[in-house]
Amino acid sequence: MKKLMQISLAGILALSFSTAVYASSDDPMEKAAEYRHDVFEVLAWHFGKMGAMIKGKVEFDKDDFATRANYVAALSAMPWEGFVEGSQGDSDSKAEIWTDKETFDNGAKMLQEKVAALVKAAESAEKVDDVKPAFMDTAKLCKGCHKKFKKD
Amino acid sequence: MKKLMQISLAGILALSFSTAVYASSDDPMEKAAEYRHDVFEVLAWHFGKMGAMIKGKVEFDKDDFATRANYVAALSAMPWEGFVEGSQGDSDSKAEIWTDKETFDNGAKMLQEKVAALVKAAESAEKVDDVKPAFMDTAKLCKGCHKKFKKD
Repeated sequence: MKKLMQISLAGILALSFSTAVYASSDDPMEKAAEYRHDVFEVLAWHFGKMGAMIKGKVEFDKDDFATRANYVAALSAMPWEGFVEGSQGDSDSKAEIWTDKETFDNGAKMLQEKVAALVKAAESAEKVDDVKPAFMDTAKLCKGCHKKFKKD
Repeated sequence: MKKLMQISLAGILALSFSTAVYASSDDPMEKAAEYRHDVFEVLAWHFGKMGAMIKGKVEFDKDDFATRANYVAALSAMPWEGFVEGSQGDSDSKAEIWTDKETFDNGAKMLQEKVAALVKAAESAEKVDDVKPAFMDTAKLCKGCHKKFKKD
Protein backbone atom coordinates (compact mmCIF):
# COMPACT_ATOMS: atom_id res chain seq x y z
CA MET A 1 0.00 0.00 0.00
CA LYS A 2 2.82 2.32 0.89
CA LYS A 3 4.61 1.47 -2.33
CA LEU A 4 1.45 1.96 -4.33
CA MET A 5 0.98 5.37 -2.80
CA GLN A 6 4.53 6.31 -3.68
CA ILE A 7 4.16 5.20 -7.27
CA SER A 8 0.89 7.01 -7.56
CA LEU A 9 2.40 10.12 -6.00
CA ALA A 10 5.36 10.00 -8.36
CA GLY A 11 2.94 9.87 -11.26
CA ILE A 12 0.86 12.70 -9.94
CA LEU A 13 3.85 14.91 -9.34
CA ALA A 14 5.30 14.08 -12.74
CA LEU A 15 2.06 14.92 -14.49
CA SER A 16 1.21 17.95 -12.42
CA PHE A 17 4.43 19.73 -11.77
CA SER A 18 7.48 18.50 -13.59
CA THR A 19 6.57 20.32 -16.78
CA ALA A 20 6.29 23.59 -14.95
CA VAL A 21 9.38 23.25 -12.80
CA TYR A 22 11.66 21.75 -15.41
CA ALA A 23 10.27 23.63 -18.38
CA SER A 24 13.38 25.65 -19.13
CA SER A 25 16.21 23.70 -17.57
CA ASP A 26 17.22 20.69 -15.53
CA ASP A 27 20.23 22.50 -14.13
CA PRO A 28 19.66 23.18 -10.41
CA MET A 29 21.46 26.53 -10.65
CA GLU A 30 19.29 27.71 -13.54
CA LYS A 31 16.20 26.42 -11.78
CA ALA A 32 17.11 28.40 -8.67
CA ALA A 33 17.63 31.55 -10.77
CA GLU A 34 14.29 31.01 -12.53
CA TYR A 35 12.55 30.42 -9.24
CA ARG A 36 13.71 33.66 -7.61
CA HIS A 37 12.96 35.57 -10.84
CA ASP A 38 9.42 34.18 -10.89
CA VAL A 39 8.86 35.20 -7.26
CA PHE A 40 9.95 38.76 -8.04
CA GLU A 41 7.71 38.84 -11.12
CA VAL A 42 4.68 37.87 -9.07
CA LEU A 43 5.65 40.34 -6.36
CA ALA A 44 6.04 43.07 -9.00
CA TRP A 45 2.58 42.28 -10.40
CA HIS A 46 0.96 43.03 -7.06
CA PHE A 47 3.25 45.90 -6.10
CA GLY A 48 2.60 47.43 -9.50
CA LYS A 49 -1.16 47.27 -8.96
CA MET A 50 -0.72 48.86 -5.53
CA GLY A 51 1.48 51.53 -7.16
CA ALA A 52 -1.26 52.31 -9.69
CA MET A 53 -3.58 53.11 -6.76
CA ILE A 54 -0.88 55.16 -5.04
CA LYS A 55 -0.34 57.15 -8.24
CA GLY A 56 -4.08 57.68 -8.67
CA LYS A 57 -4.17 55.82 -11.99
CA VAL A 58 -6.62 53.36 -10.46
CA GLU A 59 -9.14 54.26 -7.77
CA PHE A 60 -7.97 53.30 -4.28
CA ASP A 61 -9.72 50.16 -3.07
CA LYS A 62 -8.68 49.54 0.51
CA ASP A 63 -9.61 45.85 0.52
CA ASP A 64 -7.81 45.15 -2.72
CA PHE A 65 -4.79 47.12 -1.54
CA ALA A 66 -4.67 45.22 1.77
CA THR A 67 -5.06 41.85 0.02
CA ARG A 68 -2.15 42.67 -2.28
CA ALA A 69 -0.06 43.96 0.64
CA ASN A 70 -0.54 40.58 2.31
CA TYR A 71 0.42 38.79 -0.91
CA VAL A 72 3.58 40.93 -1.12
CA ALA A 73 4.34 40.09 2.52
CA ALA A 74 4.07 36.37 1.82
CA LEU A 75 6.15 36.70 -1.36
CA SER A 76 8.84 38.80 0.31
CA ALA A 77 9.86 35.76 2.37
CA MET A 78 10.26 33.48 -0.65
CA PRO A 79 12.93 34.55 -3.16
CA TRP A 80 16.00 34.28 -0.90
CA GLU A 81 16.39 30.51 -1.02
CA GLY A 82 16.82 30.90 -4.79
CA PHE A 83 20.03 32.91 -4.40
CA VAL A 84 22.13 29.77 -4.27
CA GLU A 85 25.92 30.21 -4.36
CA GLY A 86 27.01 29.58 -7.94
CA SER A 87 23.65 30.44 -9.53
CA GLN A 88 24.48 33.89 -10.92
CA GLY A 89 24.84 32.57 -14.48
CA ASP A 90 23.39 35.07 -16.98
CA SER A 91 20.64 36.13 -14.60
CA ASP A 92 19.93 39.73 -13.55
CA SER A 93 21.81 39.12 -10.31
CA LYS A 94 25.06 40.97 -9.70
CA ALA A 95 28.04 39.17 -8.12
CA GLU A 96 27.71 41.50 -5.10
CA ILE A 97 24.84 39.33 -3.87
CA TRP A 98 27.40 36.71 -2.93
CA THR A 99 30.48 38.88 -2.34
CA ASP A 100 28.58 41.26 -0.03
CA LYS A 101 26.18 38.74 1.39
CA GLU A 102 25.78 40.56 4.70
CA THR A 103 24.41 43.70 3.02
CA PHE A 104 22.21 41.59 0.75
CA ASP A 105 20.80 39.54 3.62
CA ASN A 106 20.20 42.72 5.57
CA GLY A 107 18.27 44.17 2.62
CA ALA A 108 16.18 41.00 2.45
CA LYS A 109 15.39 41.31 6.15
CA MET A 110 14.57 45.02 5.83
CA LEU A 111 12.22 44.32 2.94
CA GLN A 112 10.21 41.95 5.07
CA GLU A 113 10.07 44.55 7.86
CA LYS A 114 9.00 47.35 5.50
CA VAL A 115 6.33 45.14 3.97
CA ALA A 116 5.06 44.14 7.42
CA ALA A 117 4.64 47.87 8.15
CA LEU A 118 2.89 48.28 4.80
CA VAL A 119 0.46 45.47 5.68
CA LYS A 120 -0.23 47.11 9.03
CA ALA A 121 -0.90 50.48 7.38
CA ALA A 122 -3.03 48.84 4.68
CA GLU A 123 -5.22 46.93 7.11
CA SER A 124 -6.31 50.09 8.93
CA ALA A 125 -6.32 52.41 5.92
CA GLU A 126 -9.36 54.40 4.89
CA LYS A 127 -7.79 56.48 2.13
CA VAL A 128 -4.74 56.27 -0.12
CA ASP A 129 -2.76 58.80 1.94
CA ASP A 130 -2.85 56.35 4.85
CA VAL A 131 -0.73 53.85 2.93
CA LYS A 132 1.41 56.18 0.83
CA PRO A 133 4.30 56.64 3.30
CA ALA A 134 4.69 52.90 3.97
CA PHE A 135 4.40 52.15 0.26
CA MET A 136 7.01 54.77 -0.65
CA ASP A 137 9.28 53.45 2.05
CA THR A 138 9.08 49.95 0.58
CA ALA A 139 9.53 51.19 -2.99
CA LYS A 140 12.64 53.14 -2.00
CA LEU A 141 14.15 50.06 -0.41
CA CYS A 142 13.43 48.04 -3.58
CA LYS A 143 15.14 50.71 -5.66
CA GLY A 144 18.21 50.86 -3.44
CA CYS A 145 18.73 47.12 -3.38
CA HIS A 146 18.12 46.75 -7.12
CA LYS A 147 20.72 49.44 -7.81
CA LYS A 148 23.34 47.57 -5.80
CA PHE A 149 22.41 43.97 -6.56
CA LYS A 150 20.45 43.84 -9.85
CA LYS A 151 21.73 44.36 -13.41
CA ASP A 152 20.26 47.05 -15.74
CA MET B 1 5.06 68.07 -2.42
CA LYS B 2 2.38 65.71 -3.60
CA LYS B 3 3.51 66.13 -7.20
CA LEU B 4 7.13 65.60 -6.22
CA MET B 5 6.21 62.41 -4.45
CA GLN B 6 4.32 61.20 -7.50
CA ILE B 7 7.22 61.91 -9.84
CA SER B 8 9.62 60.24 -7.48
CA LEU B 9 7.32 57.25 -7.14
CA ALA B 10 6.96 56.94 -10.88
CA GLY B 11 10.75 56.89 -11.15
CA ILE B 12 11.10 54.34 -8.42
CA LEU B 13 8.49 52.06 -9.90
CA ALA B 14 9.96 52.40 -13.37
CA LEU B 15 13.43 51.53 -12.13
CA SER B 16 12.39 48.84 -9.73
CA PHE B 17 9.63 46.96 -11.38
CA SER B 18 8.86 47.82 -14.97
CA THR B 19 11.70 45.72 -16.29
CA ALA B 20 10.42 42.70 -14.47
CA VAL B 21 6.75 43.14 -15.25
CA TYR B 22 7.11 44.20 -18.86
CA ALA B 23 10.10 42.03 -19.68
CA SER B 24 8.37 39.82 -22.23
CA SER B 25 5.39 41.81 -23.40
CA ASP B 26 3.39 44.99 -23.04
CA ASP B 27 0.19 43.21 -24.03
CA PRO B 28 -2.13 43.00 -20.99
CA MET B 29 -3.37 39.56 -22.08
CA GLU B 30 0.16 38.15 -22.37
CA LYS B 31 1.10 39.77 -19.09
CA ALA B 32 -1.85 38.13 -17.36
CA ALA B 33 -0.86 34.74 -18.84
CA GLU B 34 2.75 35.23 -17.71
CA TYR B 35 1.63 36.28 -14.26
CA ARG B 36 -0.51 33.20 -13.63
CA HIS B 37 2.22 30.98 -15.08
CA ASP B 38 4.80 32.51 -12.74
CA VAL B 39 2.55 31.95 -9.72
CA PHE B 40 2.16 28.27 -10.63
CA GLU B 41 5.94 27.93 -11.14
CA VAL B 42 6.62 29.30 -7.66
CA LEU B 43 3.88 27.10 -6.20
CA ALA B 44 5.37 24.07 -7.98
CA TRP B 45 8.82 24.87 -6.56
CA HIS B 46 7.51 24.59 -3.01
CA PHE B 47 5.09 21.74 -3.67
CA GLY B 48 7.91 19.86 -5.37
CA LYS B 49 10.16 20.26 -2.33
CA MET B 50 7.32 19.06 -0.10
CA GLY B 51 6.83 16.13 -2.47
CA ALA B 52 10.49 15.18 -2.16
CA MET B 53 9.97 14.84 1.61
CA ILE B 54 6.76 12.87 1.11
CA LYS B 55 8.55 10.51 -1.26
CA GLY B 56 11.46 10.13 1.18
CA LYS B 57 14.00 11.57 -1.26
CA VAL B 58 14.73 14.31 1.27
CA GLU B 59 14.50 13.83 5.03
CA PHE B 60 11.24 15.14 6.48
CA ASP B 61 11.76 18.50 8.19
CA LYS B 62 8.50 19.46 9.87
CA ASP B 63 9.33 23.18 10.09
CA ASP B 64 10.43 23.42 6.48
CA PHE B 65 7.38 21.44 5.37
CA ALA B 66 5.03 23.71 7.36
CA THR B 67 6.70 26.87 6.02
CA ARG B 68 6.28 25.65 2.46
CA ALA B 69 2.68 24.61 3.13
CA ASN B 70 1.99 28.17 4.23
CA TYR B 71 3.70 29.52 1.10
CA VAL B 72 1.56 27.23 -1.04
CA ALA B 73 -1.54 28.44 0.81
CA ALA B 74 -0.67 32.07 0.09
CA LEU B 75 0.15 31.27 -3.53
CA SER B 76 -3.03 29.24 -4.06
CA ALA B 77 -5.06 32.45 -3.74
CA MET B 78 -3.07 34.35 -6.37
CA PRO B 79 -3.20 32.88 -9.88
CA TRP B 80 -6.91 33.25 -10.55
CA GLU B 81 -6.93 36.96 -11.36
CA GLY B 82 -4.55 36.11 -14.21
CA PHE B 83 -7.17 34.00 -16.01
CA VAL B 84 -8.57 37.02 -17.79
CA GLU B 85 -11.16 36.41 -20.51
CA GLY B 86 -9.31 36.57 -23.82
CA SER B 87 -5.88 35.69 -22.42
CA GLN B 88 -5.65 32.07 -23.58
CA GLY B 89 -3.26 32.93 -26.43
CA ASP B 90 -0.60 30.23 -26.84
CA SER B 91 -0.45 29.60 -23.09
CA ASP B 92 -0.87 26.18 -21.46
CA SER B 93 -4.48 27.07 -20.65
CA LYS B 94 -7.28 25.14 -22.34
CA ALA B 95 -10.36 26.97 -23.58
CA GLU B 96 -12.44 25.02 -21.01
CA ILE B 97 -11.20 27.47 -18.34
CA TRP B 98 -13.53 30.04 -19.84
CA THR B 99 -16.19 27.80 -21.39
CA ASP B 100 -16.65 25.81 -18.16
CA LYS B 101 -15.85 28.59 -15.76
CA GLU B 102 -18.05 27.19 -12.99
CA THR B 103 -16.05 23.94 -12.79
CA PHE B 104 -12.79 25.87 -13.02
CA ASP B 105 -13.75 28.32 -10.28
CA ASN B 106 -14.89 25.41 -8.14
CA GLY B 107 -11.50 23.75 -8.61
CA ALA B 108 -9.77 26.97 -7.59
CA LYS B 109 -11.89 27.12 -4.45
CA MET B 110 -11.28 23.45 -3.66
CA LEU B 111 -7.53 23.90 -4.05
CA GLN B 112 -7.54 26.60 -1.41
CA GLU B 113 -9.58 24.36 0.90
CA LYS B 114 -7.27 21.35 0.38
CA VAL B 115 -4.21 23.50 0.98
CA ALA B 116 -5.76 24.96 4.15
CA ALA B 117 -6.17 21.36 5.38
CA LEU B 118 -2.56 20.65 4.38
CA VAL B 119 -1.36 23.66 6.40
CA LYS B 120 -3.37 22.46 9.39
CA ALA B 121 -1.88 18.96 9.13
CA ALA B 122 1.62 20.38 8.60
CA GLU B 123 1.49 22.66 11.62
CA SER B 124 0.79 19.80 14.01
CA ALA B 125 2.84 17.13 12.22
CA GLU B 126 5.59 15.18 13.93
CA LYS B 127 6.36 12.74 11.12
CA VAL B 128 5.87 12.53 7.39
CA ASP B 129 2.90 10.16 7.68
CA ASP B 130 1.00 12.93 9.46
CA VAL B 131 1.02 15.09 6.33
CA LYS B 132 0.91 12.43 3.62
CA PRO B 133 -2.89 12.12 3.30
CA ALA B 134 -3.44 15.89 3.05
CA PHE B 135 -0.56 16.21 0.61
CA MET B 136 -1.86 13.38 -1.60
CA ASP B 137 -5.32 14.91 -1.48
CA THR B 138 -3.95 18.21 -2.77
CA ALA B 139 -1.77 16.54 -5.39
CA LYS B 140 -4.75 14.58 -6.73
CA LEU B 141 -6.77 17.74 -7.07
CA CYS B 142 -3.90 19.41 -8.96
CA LYS B 143 -3.74 16.44 -11.32
CA GLY B 144 -7.48 16.39 -11.96
CA CYS B 145 -7.69 20.10 -12.73
CA HIS B 146 -4.59 20.05 -14.91
CA LYS B 147 -6.03 17.19 -16.93
CA LYS B 148 -9.18 19.14 -17.64
CA PHE B 149 -7.82 22.67 -17.94
CA LYS B 150 -4.10 22.51 -18.81
CA LYS B 151 -2.47 21.51 -22.10
CA ASP B 152 0.09 18.64 -22.36
